[in-house]
Formats: sequence, C-alpha cells, structure tokens
Amino acid sequence: MAAANKSRAGGLHLWRNARLATMAESATGLGIVEKGAVAARDGIIVYAGAEAEMPAAVGQGAEIVDCGGRWITPGLIDCHTHLIHAGNRASEFEMRLAGATYEEVARAGGGIVSSVKALRAAGEDELVAQSLPRLDALIAEGVTSVEIKSGYGLDLENEKKSLRAARRLGEERPVTVRTSFLGAHALPPEAKGDKDAFVDLVANEILPAVAAEGLADAVDGFCESIAFSPEQISRVFDAAKAAGLPVKLHADQLSNLHGAELAARYGALSADHLEYTDEAGAAAMARAGTVATILPGAYYFIRETKKPPIALFRQHGVGMAVATDNNPGTSPLTSLLLTMNMAATLFGLTVDECLAGVTREAARALGLLGQAGTIEAGKSADLAIWDIERPAELVYRMGFNPLHARIWRGQ
Amino acid sequence: MAAANKSRAGGLHLWRNARLATMAESATGLGIVEKGAVAARDGIIVYAGAEAEMPAAVGQGAEIVDCGGRWITPGLIDCHTHLIHAGNRASEFEMRLAGATYEEVARAGGGIVSSVKALRAAGEDELVAQSLPRLDALIAEGVTSVEIKSGYGLDLENEKKSLRAARRLGEERPVTVRTSFLGAHALPPEAKGDKDAFVDLVANEILPAVAAEGLADAVDGFCESIAFSPEQISRVFDAAKAAGLPVKLHADQLSNLHGAELAARYGALSADHLEYTDEAGAAAMARAGTVATILPGAYYFIRETKKPPIALFRQHGVGMAVATDNNPGTSPLTSLLLTMNMAATLFGLTVDECLAGVTREAARALGLLGQAGTIEAGKSADLAIWDIERPAELVYRMGFNPLHARIWRGQ
Ligand SMILES: [Zn+2]
Ligand SMILES: [Zn+2]
Repeated sequence: MAAANKSRAGGLHLWRNARLATMAESATGLGIVEKGAVAARDGIIVYAGAEAEMPAAVGQGAEIVDCGGRWITPGLIDCHTHLIHAGNRASEFEMRLAGATYEEVARAGGGIVSSVKALRAAGEDELVAQSLPRLDALIAEGVTSVEIKSGYGLDLENEKKSLRAARRLGEERPVTVRTSFLGAHALPPEAKGDKDAFVDLVANEILPAVAAEGLADAVDGFCESIAFSPEQISRVFDAAKAAGLPVKLHADQLSNLHGAELAARYGALSADHLEYTDEAGAAAMARAGTVATILPGAYYFIRETKKPPIALFRQHGVGMAVATDNNPGTSPLTSLLLTMNMAATLFGLTVDECLAGVTREAARALGLLGQAGTIEAGKSADLAIWDIERPAELVYRMGFNPLHARIWRGQ
Repeated sequence: MAAANKSRAGGLHLWRNARLATMAESATGLGIVEKGAVAARDGIIVYAGAEAEMPAAVGQGAEIVDCGGRWITPGLIDCHTHLIHAGNRASEFEMRLAGATYEEVARAGGGIVSSVKALRAAGEDELVAQSLPRLDALIAEGVTSVEIKSGYGLDLENEKKSLRAARRLGEERPVTVRTSFLGAHALPPEAKGDKDAFVDLVANEILPAVAAEGLADAVDGFCESIAFSPEQISRVFDAAKAAGLPVKLHADQLSNLHGAELAARYGALSADHLEYTDEAGAAAMARAGTVATILPGAYYFIRETKKPPIALFRQHGVGMAVATDNNPGTSPLTSLLLTMNMAATLFGLTVDECLAGVTREAARALGLLGQAGTIEAGKSADLAIWDIERPAELVYRMGFNPLHARIWRGQ
C-alpha cells in the first residue's frame, strides 16, 4: 500500500496549509506567504507560494501533507563547523574554571595539540562514530546542509582521513555535507615551530593531493598571530586557486590582521569570526560579495568582549551568515537555534538577519545558493516544518526545539 | 512475563557497573565512586557505593541494569521556574531587536501585563497543554524535580488556576513538582497602581486561601523598585509564616534593596538572582542557611552586566543553586544543561559548583534535601544516567544532550 502510494505519487510531494518563510532574496523580510504550499518533484521544488494561486496541474497525483497551519522555513544550514574531531576538551574547560592558567593547561596536555593527537590516534570509523551524535543534534533541529572542516590532522594522511570521514557523514545521514580543507589551522608538533615550512607542505603537497582526490569543496585558513600570517595564508590561497577550489578564512577573530580584506582579495565565499574587522574590511567584503560568517558561540565560550562590526556589515551591504563553529576547544556547540539566539542577544542581529543567516546567507557562504537556502522553484526541497506561531520564536527561545518535521531532497 | 519479572523483583532495582557522582555532602567534590552500584527498593535507595562492597543480600532478586560504565548523577532539579504561563513574548523580543524602546513595547501590549492577560484568558487545561512541552524539554535532560511558581494570575481564581495546573504537570509526567505562590510578582491592571492595597489582598486573602487548599509548598515574592518594597514583601512573608509556609525571594536582581538580608531574616529557603547583593547580604544568608539561587539565563537574556557576588558566597559558605528561571519575559530557557554552561561561562562557577547547583543545592533550596539531590541510602531513587566520559562534559557542551536514561522513584 505504501509502495503503491509512492509509485502513484511519482516522486511528487505537496505540503499544503502552511505558512511559508521562503527567505527568497527578491521578497522583503522573511518572504512570508500566509496560506502557502510547496510542491516538489523528485526532490526539486516545482512550486512555492500561495496555495490559492498554485496551478491545479502542479499538485495532481501528489502525496499530500497537510501542515495544519504550521510554519515552513528552508532547511537550516550550518556553514562553519569542525564537526569531525576526536575526544573533547571538557577537562581543559574544567581546569580553566578551577583557575588554571593557559600555561598550566598546556603543560597538562591541553590546547589544540590535544585535539590533533586525539584525531591522529582515531581510525576513520571511530571518527565517524564520534562525530555522528553531533551531526544528529544539528539534524534534530532541522539542519539539512552542513559544512565540515578538516584541520586537526595536519599531515596528508590525517587530513585525508578527516575529509573522508566528513564525506561519510553525508552518506550515513540524509544531509548535504560540504567539506573544507583547513590545513593551515595550526602548527603540528613535528613542524617544530617552522610555520613557513609547514605552509609550504600544506600548499604544495597536502592541498593538491586532497584536491586531486576530490575530498574538499573549499579551502580554509586561520589568519591570526597565533596561527598564520596573511602572507602565509596567501600562499595557501594561491594553491587553492591553482587547484580550482574556492576559499574562505578564519579572519580578524583576536586581532586585526586585515584578514577580511585578504579574503575579499581572493574572492572568498566567506570570512568568518571578524570581531576585529574594520570599515575597510567590511567595504572590501561587500565589493567582493564575501559573506560575513558570525560565530557567537566562540565569542561567548572564550568570553571575548569585542563584538563583530554588525553595523558596518549592514551599512556596506555585506551578507551575514550565522554558524555554530562547532569545535572542541572554543565552541562545543551543536544547536543552530541557540546560535541564532546568541547572535541576537550578544550581537543584536534582528530576527530576520538571524533566520537569513542560517538559511539564505549560509547557503551563499557555501556556494550553494543556487540549490538551497530559500524555498523557491528549482531548488532542492530541503525544508523545516515548525510548531510555532511566529518565526521569531526560533530565535527567542533557548534550549527548546519546536521542529515538527524535516525534509531533505523532498523526503 | 513482564508482570512476573516485576513481582519477582519485588520493586527491587540494581544499577551496576556504573560510575557515580553521588554529590553527597559528606564526600569531597562530586562524591565520585568509580566502580559503583545503586540499589533501590520500592523507589527508595537502599545502597549506593562501591559495587565490590555491596552486601550480597542487597541485590538478591533485583531487576539488574548493567550501566556499561556510564556515569550516574542524581536526577537534576530545576529549583526556580515560571513554567506555567500562557503564550510567549517572542514578538516583544523581535521588536526590541528591531530597535523598539521599552515604552514602544509596552504601548504595543508587551511586558509582564501581556503574560497576565494571556494566562487569565487560558483555561486550566490549556495552561497544562501549553506548559507540558517546556516540562518535557527539562525532563529530556534528566530533570526529576521542578519548582513551578504562580504569579501571572494575580487574583484569587487565576493564582489558584496556575497552581492547580502546576500540580497537574506532576500528575501528567513522572516528576516531582514543588509549587510556589508568587502573588507579589507584579501589579495587575485592576490595582490601578496601588501596591499597598494589592499586597493586602495577596497577604490577607489570596495567600490564606491558596494555603488552605494546599496548593502551595512555599511563598515567593519579587522585591525590586519595579515590583514590591521590602516592607511590602515583609507583610506577605508574615502571612506565609502564619499559614505555615516557607518563603523564598526574587532579591537584588536590578538594584540592592537588601533583599538577601530580608530573605535571611525570614529564614528563607533561598534568595534568587542576587546580582546586586553585598557582603552583609551574603553573610546573613550564610547564617540563616538560605541558598543563593543563581539564574544566569535571565542575566544573559536581558544583557545584564552586573554579576552576582560568587566570591562572597564562597567566602561565607553560602550554598549555590543554579536554575533556569524559565519565563516568557526574561528567560525563555528550558535547558538545565545549558544553564550550567552559562553559570560557568558567565559567572565562573566551577564544574563541581554547577553540578551541586542542579542537584544537592537545588534540593536544599526546595526543602527537599532529605529526600532528593544526592545518591544516598534513604533518598528517592531519582537518577540520571549519562553517555559521557567525565562529569565536566555536562557543563562544557552547549546544546547537546547526552542523557542515556532517567529514573524517577526507582522507575
Ligand atoms: Zn572555526
Ligand atoms: Zn523568577
């Protein structure tokens, strides 16, 4: 009977009696349609708009879901995560609360080096198994696309292992995974402090190999005094360009090294963090169409006090994405709903900006805007259906998940 | 077969192969037992300690659960909530983010008056139905006891309705509910600004009626310039004493009216918020055995910058509880795990303090320490079993729920 229904529907689905927040760029605000319907054939949206205006032919033979007046948004997109990692840094967190200095934490084996060690020790299956609960937490809140970075491997085999594990997460679960190669994340112990030699290794050996195997959809870097200089990042970005991969950058988080401008110069998809970005950086990003990815979880967790220049991004028309930055050291955060609340509460983003930040702008930050991020004909039917009275509730609540159903590629 | 098993077990349960954080006061730190077991008969703990030292007779005939080395903590206790309320204030949140002033929000019908209006309009069944998802969110994270206040009714019938709805939540779900009568929460519109007359109504009419019907386990008040003066609160507390009910107080949240000392003078179970409490207040609380209930969710949500004097509480030996303060206006928070993270990240509580704050100290703040809050023989078998490697993970993560199982009264 189910099979019969399925064959009768011919891959055609219709969600009716819904309120839509289409997030379409052409619309104002959230692109609200009060009495809306969405139809999809073979996973692609064929109609999204007023139910009364839907051509009768569109829904003929469809499997129909009555949404009971519930809200539908695009499936959420977490466009910046380090979801693939091994172990956690709870003990380091505990030590710091108990008053330990950074030096004491480091002596006790803490810091990013401990994550590198744990990742290298874990097999690929183990990495997948450890990371799946984190992915499942995101999915439970309506996430349909997620970006996942490497960057704890820091040698050829372990970076490849990380990216393969990330790809496998997308096979284990109904979710779109985009991978970013983040070789220039930190200096591994065996580099013995020689950042330039390590950057050569990343740019000339690891990156080309990763690209040749098709393991990365983009290349990322960490531009900061405690990581890599703009000049070093440029060498990685040149290699990315040579390999035909788009770039993005961890920029201006702890100081202003003009990372935003560097990213813009390379036409980066996004520049991320941006607490210390200045007006020249914002203007350069606007000209390049580089998205500003706001990461309030890390700001909150490390008790940063300098906020990203939201007013400048608005003024210059820079698109703003909002993401978890899920990682064991500075943002052990697996709720994109909570991340929106943090963006609003800590940085003053409006409800509309928060929702655009985890849908349309997050898609733009991943180069996915052509196929996801809004509810429009021609895009993948990635939808989240919510038990709420108004979209603002998705931002307002803390630690509450009103997801009613989640659709990925029409299913 | 299930029935046969149950009768054979004679209400005797044994959780073995576990790591315990007993939180017992006599122990140091978390009261850790590495290879532990807990046995309960008819819902009451009969043994908690090292498995190897458990008398063989204790476990004979028990229904046995192998915990696979997982951690067991006491069931969590949320000792300060306004869980019973109608509607939400997401639109107000949205307006403020869009730049509206408090005056504009009030003109648009926002503020606490809107919650009073919504609660009065809702029937008891509707109140229960709206509040259950919030309770379920807490329960999903291992909460086994929850305090629930009235305070949006503000007349006899609506306060009684709120407290009846709170009691009913405890019948609808396997959870211990403790109710607090919070008549002195805000001034209802019909009081036309006359706080003294309203306090008379609360103290002389509503409170005695509520107490006579056994609807309240304690009496609470809001001592603040925007609410009620210390003198007004004293009248309510005198009435509570006359009715034989313990008291607690929303104290020193926005200014120092010496609410902590007032609470201590009445031997209050707890004083809550306490951002502006001074050393005299902390010392008075210590002498009275009044618990300091820390509410970081409200601090975060209203973007407060003055932190409660944690160092003073430590120095004077004041017990600290940690709670959600779940309410629609200033803390729409339904995650006690996230609340612990906020207490650590925003106020610097240690992991041990956070865990004690949602178990032992929360039980003390509810007058429940004799029956809950620690894993010790003689107490209710309220347990939370966690998929974690160390207790610090419960505080460190944000938006992640590692609960494996939850036991309430041995089930
Ligand atoms: Zn990052
Ligand atoms: Zn409160």
